[in-house]
Amino acid sequence: MTLTVLGLGAMGTALTRAWLAAGHHVTVWNRTPARAERLAAEGATVAATPAEAVAANRLVVTCLLDHASVVDVLDGTDLAGRDLVDLTTGTPAQARDRAEWAAGRGARYVDGGIMAVPPMIGVPDSGAYVFYSGSVDLFAEHERTLAVPAGAKWVGDDPGHAALHDVALLGGMTGLFAGVTHAFALVHGEKDIDTGEFATLLVDWLAACLPFTQRMAQRIVTGDYTSDVTSNLAMQVTANRTMVDTAVDQGVRPDLITPYLDLSARGVAEGQGAEDGARLIELLRR
Amino acid sequence: MTLTVLGLGAMGTALTRAWLAAGHHVTVWNRTPARAERLAAEGATVAATPAEAVAANRLVVTCLLDHASVVDVLDGTDLAGRDLVDLTTGTPAQARDRAEWAAGRGARYVDGGIMAVPPMIGVPDSGAYVFYSGSVDLFAEHERTLAVPAGAKWVGDDPGHAALHDVALLGGMTGLFAGVTHAFALVHGEKDIDTGEFATLLVDWLAACLPFTQRMAQRIVTGDYTSDVTSNLAMQVTANRTMVDTAVDQGVRPDLITPYLDLSARGVAEGQGAEDGARLIELLRR
Ligand SMILES: NC(=O)c1ccc[n+]([C@@H]2O[C@H](COP(=O)([O-])OP(=O)(O)OC[C@H]3O[C@@H](n4cnc5c(N)ncnc54)[C@H](OP(=O)(O)O)[C@@H]3O)[C@@H](O)[C@H]2O)c1
Ligand SMILES: NC(=O)c1ccc[n+]([C@@H]2O[C@H](COP(=O)([O-])OP(=O)(O)OC[C@H]3O[C@@H](n4cnc5c(N)ncnc54)[C@H](OP(=O)(O)O)[C@@H]3O)[C@@H](O)[C@H]2O)c1
Repeated sequence: MTLTVLGLGAMGTALTRAWLAAGHHVTVWNRTPARAERLAAEGATVAATPAEAVAANRLVVTCLLDHASVVDVLDGTDLAGRDLVDLTTGTPAQARDRAEWAAGRGARYVDGGIMAVPPMIGVPDSGAYVFYSGSVDLFAEHERTLAVPAGAKWVGDDPGHAALHDVALLGGMTGLFAGVTHAFALVHGEKDIDTGEFATLLVDWLAACLPFTQRMAQRIVTGDYTSDVTSNLAMQVTANRTMVDTAVDQGVRPDLITPYLDLSARGVAEGQGAEDGARLIELLRR
Repeated sequence: MTLTVLGLGAMGTALTRAWLAAGHHVTVWNRTPARAERLAAEGATVAATPAEAVAANRLVVTCLLDHASVVDVLDGTDLAGRDLVDLTTGTPAQARDRAEWAAGRGARYVDGGIMAVPPMIGVPDSGAYVFYSGSVDLFAEHERTLAVPAGAKWVGDDPGHAALHDVALLGGMTGLFAGVTHAFALVHGEKDIDTGEFATLLVDWLAACLPFTQRMAQRIVTGDYTSDVTSNLAMQVTANRTMVDTAVDQGVRPDLITPYLDLSARGVAEGQGAEDGARLIELLRR
């Protein structure tokens, strides 16, 4: 099994190490050569240019900073007959463009979205996985190799769908981190409150709130927003004022949570007061 | 064991049912009498006025909409010698005011913050619990009764600390819900993506992200923001543009996530680009 990896940041390095550990032959290239040299000592073959790296193997994996850097790096390489797998985070539209661009150069294309941080890569049962979409033939041919660093989840032949899944989950995570950041800002430094102990309470609480996500999906799918409401939006909006006032009293700008509070208030104003908030997605879409 | 409950909304009703089921004698009052009548059939004693309800028992629990409704309802009752436990969501400052107000009327005071939705109340092992703070003597005397509907977590004699814990966890939850709402808005209705299956991916992903919370607490406590950074803020901020562009492409306003993205960008601008975001709380506080 042989492949090329372009981009040896935190993620590209972790991916390459996982393939090397599994006995694959990996040709690598990185803009800053020092990062490649380090991997040479671990068995990787270092290419001097992207063109040389692409020429070395049929399967070419990119894991660069962003769409622009992928275009930069692949420009001037000969992709004819190559199987290009791009694991760089990007938008669905960028992935679709790249698929077309690759096709125009005689390459098959699969886009990937990595759902893990580097320390989870190559670690069995870490839960790390990658969304893949695009050319199903490419995927079928290389699935075993692609599944080495992290689980491989196929999400269809629209090359944009790996990115859409990826970016949607990142959006969920952004909200989570925003909430956690706000919570720590409120309590850290408060007399008699231990930030570490508070973190445990916070994690347990958020884990307990997570099942609401499934409930929300059910409501969205069935269109039933009114049965078995246990925390009505009107009551939640009342608690919103409490959240903002508490932040101000604690010297914390409430900016991270106000957009959701405002959206809830709009939901109540538009007649969702007796529901539980699942229908707020409609308000984001107009 | 006897007690009074004022306020029979979704939460007050669930609390009262748990006490009745445990064989307690409960006197209830609610502004809209129909909600009290329903509980009379289940064994509660209905009082005609708040004053009558307060007169009936030493332990008086309020679970009303907000601070203003508590003040409204208790005004004109004789609290001398009463043990008042307020489970209405409010700010730490409101809880401290109420403690002083109660003391001025000869009552002991404990404030509570309920970390559960009503269906979890009175259900063993549901994980439901209540933060309590204020008069430790009151708490010690009534702890067994208070622990009937949900676990009782004592967080100290500052009457504001139950509310601070409560509101901080609600802030975390608000972020979580904001993220989840954003994520559903991005994918729901997309051809070939099943919203229910996506919900499962989202829940698993957010559960996998939760441990970052502990890591963040550790960084905040130790002041070490630089070792073992696996997802640097500069890279995250690059992905931020991807998130906003994807939202726009999907016809979704990115409002719910932009404040955190903006805060991250500010973090990078202020030199936190090689860190992982834990120090962003400092930027919320100035
Ligand atoms: N780290 C994570 O937690 C994580 C998780 C999921 C997905 N991802 C995604 O994986 C990708 C890489 O992330 P990372 O953590 O490895 O980032 P990183 O550590 O910041 O590395 C960025 C990589 O991109 C290269 N690069 C940037 N601009 C370039 C350009 N114009 N031309 C050529 N090379 C360029 C860098 O080369 P130099 O070494 O020369 O700077 C480096 O190899 C990103 O799309 C990221 O969103 C990361
Ligand atoms: N439900 C939850 O998931 C949940 C979770 C944790 C904490 N809490 C907190 O528990 C408290 C009650 O929530 P809930 O879900 O029971 O709300 P709810 O179902 O909306 O009930 C509100 C209660 O407050 C009463 N009320 C409102 N304004 C009043 C006034 N001016 N004078 C007298 N009574 C008044 C209502 O009486 P009427 O029946 O006459 O309207 C009703 O009994 C809130 O502080 C909430 O934040 C709720």
